[in-house]
Amino acid sequence: MHALSVPEAIRQRRSVRRFQSAPVPPGLLRELLELTVAAPSSWNFQPWRIVVVTAEAQRAALQRSCYGQRQVGEAPVTLVFAFSNSGWREDLEPMVAQAEVREAWSPDYCAGVRSRAPQQQENLERRGQMREFNIRDSVVAATQVMLAAESLGLATCMMSGWQEDLVKEAIGAAGDKDIGIAVLLEIGYAAEVPRSPGRLPLSHTVFLERLGLPYPNDDAAGVSPLLREPDE
Amino acid sequence: MHALSVPEAIRQRRSVRRFQSAPVPPGLLRELLELTVAAPSSWNFQPWRIVVVTAEAQRAALQRSCYGQRQVGEAPVTLVFAFSNSGWREDLEPMVAQAEVREAWSPDYCAGVRSRAPQQQENLERRGQMREFNIRDSVVAATQVMLAAESLGLATCMMSGWQEDLVKEAIGAAGDKDIGIAVLLEIGYAAEVPRSPGRLPLSHTVFLERLGLPYPNDDAAGVSPLLREPDE
Repeated sequence: MHALSVPEAIRQRRSVRRFQSAPVPPGLLRELLELTVAAPSSWNFQPWRIVVVTAEAQRAALQRSCYGQRQVGEAPVTLVFAFSNSGWREDLEPMVAQAEVREAWSPDYCAGVRSRAPQQQENLERRGQMREFNIRDSVVAATQVMLAAESLGLATCMMSGWQEDLVKEAIGAAGDKDIGIAVLLEIGYAAEVPRSPGRLPLSHTVFLERLGLPYPNDDAAGVSPLLREPDE
Repeated sequence: MHALSVPEAIRQRRSVRRFQSAPVPPGLLRELLELTVAAPSSWNFQPWRIVVVTAEAQRAALQRSCYGQRQVGEAPVTLVFAFSNSGWREDLEPMVAQAEVREAWSPDYCAGVRSRAPQQQENLERRGQMREFNIRDSVVAATQVMLAAESLGLATCMMSGWQEDLVKEAIGAAGDKDIGIAVLLEIGYAAEVPRSPGRLPLSHTVFLERLGLPYPNDDAAGVSPLLREPDE
C-alpha cells in the first residue's frame, strides 16, 4: 500500500466534517494505533490512555460531549486521548526494564532514570504542572496518528470543542480524578473534503532569534524542490 | 528529494541528543516552517508564535533555560513554540477574510465565526483555559515539523525540560504575560541515533469503547502489509 510522504500528508490534510459510514478496517486501525504510541514522551512515560470508540451508543454519547458536532456522529472511529496523572508510578519499572533489556539505555542511565524521574514527576505534581505535561505528550501522539491516517487514505478531524466531564463519563471514567482528557480525533473516510481556509502570513507567526523579528524572506536561492508544484 | 512516508518517519524517529555542527540549509528550513504552520488549530486561530533560534549566543541562553541539556547547545536550530493568548483578537478578521476570499468558508459560516468565536474565546479566558488550548494547538504544529524534519533527513528532539521564564527571557519576551511557551524542538543532522527504548504493551495504553477494556488482539487476519518488516 502506498503511503503519502510527511510533506504530502501535511499539505493534503484538511479538517473533515463529513464522513462516509464505511468502517476503518481492523488491521489498518491497529497499525494506526501502533504508530500513535510510537510518539516520544517525557521520560518515555507514555501517559496517554487511548480509548478507541466505534460502537454506536458510545459515539452518540461522545457526540453529546462535543456539543452535538456532526463529525463525531458520522466518523466510524473516535480516538479519545485520555491520560493518567499517576500511571508513571506503576509504569516506571517495566518501562526502564524494557529499555535496559533492549540495550537502549545503559545501566547507569537506567539507574539515573529510576532515581531522578520520580523526583521530577513529584515536582510537577507539587507545582500543578502534571496535567500540562500529560496533555503535551498526548497531543504529540494524536498528531502522529492524524498524519498517519492521512497518509494511509483516511481523513481526520482534530477536536477542540468538547466538555471534559461528559467525555470522561462516555469512556467510563466519570469522576476519576486521575484521568484527564487531552484531545479527541475523528477518523474515517471523507465524504466531503473542504477547501483550505489558508494561513496567516509566515511573517506574522514565525520569528528569527527573538519574538518580534519576522523570519526573513530572502533565502529564495535555497528554496527546496519540494516547494514546487507537484506537477513540475 | 525523496521524503519518507508518514509511517516510515514515525518508525524511524528517535529523540536525538547528539547533533553535527552542520547548519540546516535555509530553503529546507523555510519548507519545514511552512509545513509547521499548516497545522490545524481551534477556529484556525494559529496561536503559535514560533521563534527560530540559530545564533550562538541565543542557543547558549536557551541551553541555560533547559538545565544545560547538551542537545540544545549542539543542534543548529531550536524552534521555540511560544504562543500568544490575545493574538486572536487581532487575527480574527484577516483570518476570516482570507477564508472568505478563498471560498473555503461560506459567507454564512464566516458571519458565524465572526460572532461566535470571540464569545467562545472569552469563555476560555474566563475559565482559565486559554493557555491549555494554545498549548494543544502549538504542540500539533511542533509534531508536524518533528515528523517533516525526520522525513527530510534531519533529526529532532522534542523537549520537556525547560524553565518557562528563562525561555521567555531568551526569546525577548521576559515578563510578557500574553506569551506562553508550549514546547521546544531541536533540529539538525544526527551525530548519534540512539536505539528505541520500546513502548509499554498496547494492551496497557489502548482501550476499546471504555477505559479499562484493553483493545483486543484478535484481528490478526486484517494485519496491514505495512506492519511487515521493511525488507519483506
